[in-house]
Amino acid sequence: MPQGQDEAPVTAAILVIGDEILSGRTKDTNSGHIAETMTAIGIDLTEIRVVSDVEEAIVEALNALRARNAYVFTTGGIGPTHDDKTADAVAAAFGVGIDHDPRAVAMLRERFPNPGDLNEGRLRMARIPFGADLIDNPVSKAPGFRLENVFVMAGVPSIMKAMLQTIVPQLRTGVPVASVTLRADAKEGDIAVPLRDVQNAHPRVTIGSYPFTEGGRFNTNLVLRSRDPAALADAKAVVEAMLTNMRAAPA
Amino acid sequence: MPQGQDEAPVTAAILVIGDEILSGRTKDTNSGHIAETMTAIGIDLTEIRVVSDVEEAIVEALNALRARNAYVFTTGGIGPTHDDKTADAVAAAFGVGIDHDPRAVAMLRERFPNPGDLNEGRLRMARIPFGADLIDNPVSKAPGFRLENVFVMAGVPSIMKAMLQTIVPQLRTGVPVASVTLRADAKEGDIAVPLRDVQNAHPRVTIGSYPFTEGGRFNTNLVLRSRDPAALADAKAVVEAMLTNMRAAPA
Repeated sequence: MPQGQDEAPVTAAILVIGDEILSGRTKDTNSGHIAETMTAIGIDLTEIRVVSDVEEAIVEALNALRARNAYVFTTGGIGPTHDDKTADAVAAAFGVGIDHDPRAVAMLRERFPNPGDLNEGRLRMARIPFGADLIDNPVSKAPGFRLENVFVMAGVPSIMKAMLQTIVPQLRTGVPVASVTLRADAKEGDIAVPLRDVQNAHPRVTIGSYPFTEGGRFNTNLVLRSRDPAALADAKAVVEAMLTNMRAAPA
Repeated sequence: MPQGQDEAPVTAAILVIGDEILSGRTKDTNSGHIAETMTAIGIDLTEIRVVSDVEEAIVEALNALRARNAYVFTTGGIGPTHDDKTADAVAAAFGVGIDHDPRAVAMLRERFPNPGDLNEGRLRMARIPFGADLIDNPVSKAPGFRLENVFVMAGVPSIMKAMLQTIVPQLRTGVPVASVTLRADAKEGDIAVPLRDVQNAHPRVTIGSYPFTEGGRFNTNLVLRSRDPAALADAKAVVEAMLTNMRAAPA
């Protein structure tokens, strides 16, 4: 058996912070990118929450998520303007102080060598909760930070992606979940009962059924997922046989 | 003053249900559509949560969200297959029973007049918690449902959109938040301090600052939002003057 496959999976949650997502003005693409990244390294994403730019909302969600996940990734709210409240909220959630961090100030000074440019607004981006490690920002210097199991990243997708790349090597990863997608060429309703029986007979495999339309007709993708390659191969063969039998059956 | 502008806003939350979103395989577009719709009718979206196809996770999130929002909209998990657990979870969250609903069975029979097609799998889609009202599904008949302040919709975007259209007239709406977007032609860090002062002087207006890149350069959109048109116009004029002054200032 592959190493670790029966260990408890490493879990993570995402906390997206920003009124602009809740108003529908901005569409959140960061969550999808983080989700794909976690899947690739074998970390199970258990929950995504989107909250507004209100400190109490951020604190409450962060404390709920960090208590029951190995990691929490936040995006948004660490810029220079008054509506960026994430750093203060993280400090409040952990009950620690926050102040301008000399390491972060040095990073900003590299980008803004002219003292007039490193103004009070930009210096807000150097306010880091006590005890946090910084996360490099190769795009625009203003760092993210890690406090215990919480990783605080920017909301701008290009910066978030760059920060995530530097975070991934720090994570305890799991055995990736392997997956197989089978196109059913059938409607969900026509395969639901035999598919349930396959699922019941293969508890080490999770079988998801996802309808889609093509040329106005409903079809179904079946996605089989497992950390156990042998169990996955076995379930795949059984689902393929099920689909073949159905096609051969009289209409 | 426009009617209702000082009343407590009507609030809503979205609960997205599905492993396929958490794995990153499927990108959630339903939340963005619901968010835009709520903004248009003056309902404040306070939170979005995405949870997996696990009954306990759905129950916990639903009970948290329905207790503190006027409305909750769920998407996903009401199909015919074993991985669709939303209806049972909603019944469990409310502590009510669930069974095949004759009204829902009649809707399915309309689509599947041949008794052989209305099989056990498809009949799962007629399992509705006791006390719920049905939500019409003009696309594929299998209904959603409303139980108290919770609206349960399909995950397939075309069906979700159609269901939402039938739901909107049932909602108590609010005064829409009007918004103005001003392109700053400046970096966030250069306007953060004067913008904070404008925000402090205009408490009835919420000013959001959203950086974006264009041709490799950072720029900023300022979004002013308010239910009070006069306050919005006033703040807009002040922000515009602020931007004009900045451009006139020596570099």
